[in-house]
Amino acid sequence: MNRLLILIAAALASVLPAAAQNNRQASSSDDPAGITTARPDGRFLSSRGTVQHLLKQLKPANAFNPSFTKEEFAAWQSDVRSAMKELMHYPEAGDLPSPVRLKTVKREGYRIEKWESYPLPGSVVPYLVLIPDGVDATHPAPAVLCIPGFGGSKEEMAGETESDYDLSGAPVEPVRKNAQALRYVQKGLVAVAVDNVSCAELSDNGHFDYLNTSRMLLEIGWSYLGLTSWQDWNVLNWMKTQPYVDTGRIIVSGFSLGTEPLMVLGALDPSIYAFVYNDFLCRTLERILVMTKPDEKGRRPFPNTIEHLIPGFLTRFDFPDLVAALAPRPVICTEGGLDRDFDLIRKAYELSGKPENFTFYHYQLFADPKDRKQLEHVPEGIDRDTYFKLVNVDPANHYFKSEWVLPWIDRLLK
Amino acid sequence: MNRLLILIAAALASVLPAAAQNNRQASSSDDPAGITTARPDGRFLSSRGTVQHLLKQLKPANAFNPSFTKEEFAAWQSDVRSAMKELMHYPEAGDLPSPVRLKTVKREGYRIEKWESYPLPGSVVPYLVLIPDGVDATHPAPAVLCIPGFGGSKEEMAGETESDYDLSGAPVEPVRKNAQALRYVQKGLVAVAVDNVSCAELSDNGHFDYLNTSRMLLEIGWSYLGLTSWQDWNVLNWMKTQPYVDTGRIIVSGFSLGTEPLMVLGALDPSIYAFVYNDFLCRTLERILVMTKPDEKGRRPFPNTIEHLIPGFLTRFDFPDLVAALAPRPVICTEGGLDRDFDLIRKAYELSGKPENFTFYHYQLFADPKDRKQLEHVPEGIDRDTYFKLVNVDPANHYFKSEWVLPWIDRLLK
Repeated sequence: MNRLLILIAAALASVLPAAAQNNRQASSSDDPAGITTARPDGRFLSSRGTVQHLLKQLKPANAFNPSFTKEEFAAWQSDVRSAMKELMHYPEAGDLPSPVRLKTVKREGYRIEKWESYPLPGSVVPYLVLIPDGVDATHPAPAVLCIPGFGGSKEEMAGETESDYDLSGAPVEPVRKNAQALRYVQKGLVAVAVDNVSCAELSDNGHFDYLNTSRMLLEIGWSYLGLTSWQDWNVLNWMKTQPYVDTGRIIVSGFSLGTEPLMVLGALDPSIYAFVYNDFLCRTLERILVMTKPDEKGRRPFPNTIEHLIPGFLTRFDFPDLVAALAPRPVICTEGGLDRDFDLIRKAYELSGKPENFTFYHYQLFADPKDRKQLEHVPEGIDRDTYFKLVNVDPANHYFKSEWVLPWIDRLLK
Repeated sequence: MNRLLILIAAALASVLPAAAQNNRQASSSDDPAGITTARPDGRFLSSRGTVQHLLKQLKPANAFNPSFTKEEFAAWQSDVRSAMKELMHYPEAGDLPSPVRLKTVKREGYRIEKWESYPLPGSVVPYLVLIPDGVDATHPAPAVLCIPGFGGSKEEMAGETESDYDLSGAPVEPVRKNAQALRYVQKGLVAVAVDNVSCAELSDNGHFDYLNTSRMLLEIGWSYLGLTSWQDWNVLNWMKTQPYVDTGRIIVSGFSLGTEPLMVLGALDPSIYAFVYNDFLCRTLERILVMTKPDEKGRRPFPNTIEHLIPGFLTRFDFPDLVAALAPRPVICTEGGLDRDFDLIRKAYELSGKPENFTFYHYQLFADPKDRKQLEHVPEGIDRDTYFKLVNVDPANHYFKSEWVLPWIDRLLK
């Protein structure tokens, strides 16, 4: 049965007998930041109120339940996988051409290979492979698939010059904070750097056209994340075929927007060894429901734009559920959030028998528990800045946290 | 099988063997307005090119085929109904409370009743009913469900004062052009006027928050059009229970954005008698594919915002198919488009045995065939203004065409 129908049916079952309200009142209270109704029957006149009500009734079908038994937990993980598969709408690609190497450039201590893949008819998707000196089929190394954030690029992650798609320049000095692939290769790992859909080398004549591409994909029932993670999925599968890669130790490392394909790949592919989740962790449904403070023109904010939209996603799970579903595989979350969500994930790792495999750090500003909020529920009626403060996010310090990730990698691979 | 998977599988089947392109070229030609690739293998580096390619391969599963036999035509109409049902995700609403009348106001020659309906838990949706003097259970009249355009309201359609939700004011003089409900009641028809989701009385403290509401609905797998047409569907069904309504002659009249719920209701409910389609008619897929001329910042336009987004819609049909599927029921299209599309629809009406039941008018500016374009394919690389010119649209004269509609109503009901 359609998830949406179940949701609405559940909400209908809970509806109170409606009393005719001949003495009608406005649907908003005195505080326009909240979404309230003054009607005695609790009904909303505003569509925004109706939809707010609908989303508040939402019980995602594949949410993690901390009271799962071990058996229920395993069955749930399998359900999460199936649900993710459904949501992502991957094509059943039969005979895709194999990726082709275009160029190899020597760097100090490693080399960079430029490859291109052909994940869809009509499409070519380049990526960079950073291989440490001395790593080969007889000396394979663990490998990391590096996925950039909004506005980022594979060149930035590789420490190369932005837009230098021929790799004709020199590495950028000093090394930029988000050069995660460079950091990994310097530690002796193979690092594979990809672009997100519509960005950098995949941009539209230099314009990062997230919105237009997302909208077109949505029109045909696909999504930005569906295509992006499909591209990443193909590179990931290619990595498994490279003899110099220790295929038992492939890590996915996502920065910011890149944590979304990370969660998708993690749900779909149990063979991934570990995950670097470099962003704050939040409940997206809650974020939508609480960021309701109108701006000076009366417009309420929405947390993000449509490159994040996966139709039906919220009827299934939320981000903390997806991280919980990775258990017992090692995960590091590097930019905090609410301890409430980390406690939930920790329970999943305890259930899986490997509590030590879940690691998280808060932003430096909120490292001391007395300095951070410990909310169970974020209040409605707030704007974006207030939201970030309440969930312990320090946006100015959003960057790849090599200071936490690299020592964690050492411990992971020792 | 998922429609998207079928689409991609078809595209994969048509893919050429990929040749490795060591001598790579940019994916764009010299003309940035078009979306082209200079690669010999025809692949696109830009995601926009990839998605353009994907949408160009699209063969909507439920498109009208003018070579249908009569039997195939009937089967196709049934398929269109099923596909629309799937896309709209209507809740299986069991025991919705009945609508309630709040107020009755006398006007010259008719009365206005204000009602409210309860189409979802947590929701109240008011509407206006304009009833001619002398119409009652023993003298029932044909009825029209009037659906407004973007930014419109039921009050505007009823000839009442904008935002006067208590109907405490007087009718607006002179009568506004878009007062379609008033025009209908003056002709002796019962006219029911609704608001679109998020607009007018359903707005969020006066803000017409199409985008926010649409986005939230899409997150749970629904859509703006799904909710809007669900609200209209409930009012339509209520109309059928009113003893003063000639239930065999219920018309749906949509202006602009309101033509979208019109097409939905028309596909879902074969009992609707006739349709007033007051907008230009176009192929939305083509519109997306040809409006590719970037603005000064390099951004290509998208024809509209997400209140028009129904995920998967384009894998099924396009607007001309949906109008064709209304045959043999009477339809009037009032604001032109390309004769190509009207010819297609006329074929459907011929197949249904009632060619005389399809009527269309062009904008005055393009009334003479020598003054209008007769394109089979709209060229790529154009902006919005050029698009309108090429498909014979005169945006400045977009209004409810009572000059065509009212005489047509006379002929229809004589």
